[in-house]
Amino acid sequence: MKVGDRQWRTIWLAPDDWSVEIIDQTKLPHQFETRRLETLEDAAEAIAVMRVRGAPLIGATAAYGLCLALRDDQSDERLDEAAAALAATRPTAINLRWAIDNMTALLQPLAPSKRLAMAYSRAAEICDDDIATCRAIGAHGAKLIADIWEGNDRRAPVNLLTHCNAGWLATIDWGTALSPVYLAHDQGVAVHVWVDETRPRNQGAGLTAWELLNHGVPHTVIADNAGGHLMSHGRVDLCITGTDRTTANGDVCNKIGTYLKALAAHDNGIPFYVALPHSTIDWSISDGLKEIPIEERDPREVTHIAGCDDDGAVISVRVTPEGSPALNPAFDVTPGRLVTGLITERGVCLASNEGLLSLYPEMQG
Amino acid sequence: MKVGDRQWRTIWLAPDDWSVEIIDQTKLPHQFETRRLETLEDAAEAIAVMRVRGAPLIGATAAYGLCLALRDDQSDERLDEAAAALAATRPTAINLRWAIDNMTALLQPLAPSKRLAMAYSRAAEICDDDIATCRAIGAHGAKLIADIWEGNDRRAPVNLLTHCNAGWLATIDWGTALSPVYLAHDQGVAVHVWVDETRPRNQGAGLTAWELLNHGVPHTVIADNAGGHLMSHGRVDLCITGTDRTTANGDVCNKIGTYLKALAAHDNGIPFYVALPHSTIDWSISDGLKEIPIEERDPREVTHIAGCDDDGAVISVRVTPEGSPALNPAFDVTPGRLVTGLITERGVCLASNEGLLSLYPEMQG
Repeated sequence: MKVGDRQWRTIWLAPDDWSVEIIDQTKLPHQFETRRLETLEDAAEAIAVMRVRGAPLIGATAAYGLCLALRDDQSDERLDEAAAALAATRPTAINLRWAIDNMTALLQPLAPSKRLAMAYSRAAEICDDDIATCRAIGAHGAKLIADIWEGNDRRAPVNLLTHCNAGWLATIDWGTALSPVYLAHDQGVAVHVWVDETRPRNQGAGLTAWELLNHGVPHTVIADNAGGHLMSHGRVDLCITGTDRTTANGDVCNKIGTYLKALAAHDNGIPFYVALPHSTIDWSISDGLKEIPIEERDPREVTHIAGCDDDGAVISVRVTPEGSPALNPAFDVTPGRLVTGLITERGVCLASNEGLLSLYPEMQG
Repeated sequence: MKVGDRQWRTIWLAPDDWSVEIIDQTKLPHQFETRRLETLEDAAEAIAVMRVRGAPLIGATAAYGLCLALRDDQSDERLDEAAAALAATRPTAINLRWAIDNMTALLQPLAPSKRLAMAYSRAAEICDDDIATCRAIGAHGAKLIADIWEGNDRRAPVNLLTHCNAGWLATIDWGTALSPVYLAHDQGVAVHVWVDETRPRNQGAGLTAWELLNHGVPHTVIADNAGGHLMSHGRVDLCITGTDRTTANGDVCNKIGTYLKALAAHDNGIPFYVALPHSTIDWSISDGLKEIPIEERDPREVTHIAGCDDDGAVISVRVTPEGSPALNPAFDVTPGRLVTGLITERGVCLASNEGLLSLYPEMQG
């Protein structure tokens, strides 16, 4: 997507054809900086400290991390060591593990001398595949947005609401929940996005707003508390969020607060869609509320907020009294009954087992 | 309520028996400072810059502001001038207007020489009346909390969730939504309060947490996004919030985000109560969503957050990208159908016209 006059991805091969460059997301939205990764350690550090985040992007960074690790030494030992180092950066990230396993399964059978070229080729393919998946999600979702616009005789922009950041910064390009928005916008559909701030980590205020601002998509940041009010006053036409894990029954585990917006959409008869690549579907579980353990993160993310001071420096301030404890659950589960539909790379389906199987019949039985 | 070893009110007559002292709430939760008001201008400034906030406390401060204004000059002109100056500080605050009208109606018929003593006497009475009202709300609400505790064989603390600050800092003492909590706690009922941060102004993280911490009530601060998750996992027994305006049909206009919590409580079968003095009931309107205009405040409250830096200084940081607009609606409306009951100084009733009239039969017809 666009930043300034240029199209960007979140990760790309440098002009030297071996080192890797990323957008340093720890600096956003206050500073736009790229960073060059030259070693396995550089890649592992970028994942661990969240210079890159979002499941697909973490996976792609790990894939390129293996490439960098193999540059001087293509032995079995080096491959194992690099895979272990990368896997340890964020132990619970499913795509990270998937990308590492996929790469090592491909590389291990090869003669060491063939490994480096294949690694770079497969890492590029992982990126391209993700872009194609996100683009397909966008095409299916953009049609929903365009239909609302046409149904409204193109009189007013379609007002969308999104929570957290499921945009291009979380993937290689396009994003999941925001891919339909970008595609609709690029096709000339008038859109406006209500951006939930998304406390406690503020990925909406920090990343989604930054993405939309730079691509030129009209948007307005709101406190997480405001969405229900806007919906009950007819100021939201459609909600789209991402998901970290989707059950076989269509329950959606996504950033904390998603459930509250789904309740408000349901109470006001507003469609609530969730965009996802098939890789987030966990076919082994059905009841999201009972079966998905919810990560509780550092309470400091609640008690402190990072922002930019008057001098442009990014600093952290405490908002609670010293001595008051805080709890920081990172995700919640939105039952499929509150979800109008799932937007996948294969099309849109009901948030139910029947719905998902209609798109993924190979998972039947 | 308690701060340290002492009982405090939010406003009181100084030992000199003429000047007035307040807790400077602009410094909370990071610094606890009191401030002496000696003139009409001091009182007006304290209201205008929100050193005092909350409808009952604003009213009481205005009442004492009139006292201070009359100290040197008890003429009709001075009384009119002071009333006008105080009324202009926060033009939309209903209690402010009520307190000024009440005082001037009482003082105007008197000979100037009698006015000063009467003003101080009536200001003290306004404070005492408010405390009695809040105390009565607390008694009715504490019974609801105690019943849950007993129903649970006193095995576990009663988990309450509250939004924003409807505590003693918003009144003279006790508060509205928090009065039942303080009373139950003081009576020995085990309680624990989930404190919604309450973006964008953070009255929960800043004021409610500070109140509870200082009075010794167990509590945990959470992001506004977290309440639905906690409710769907059985970690909330009861919600209590305040209200700024209540319609004759029991719709509740309260801090933005209240509606989302009411939806989640309803979806999970958790009782959702609203505590209010009768002065917040607007008998002239019935449909809150259609009839109550919602104030939109400065977007800077969304784009910037104030907190305490590592050196203890209170500073403001920007959390959004420069150039992204924000919208800041301050209140939302929770329809009476989502409210289990209203806790008033006369008792608990259904959130409906019938319910309210059962407690206030004099408003019939």
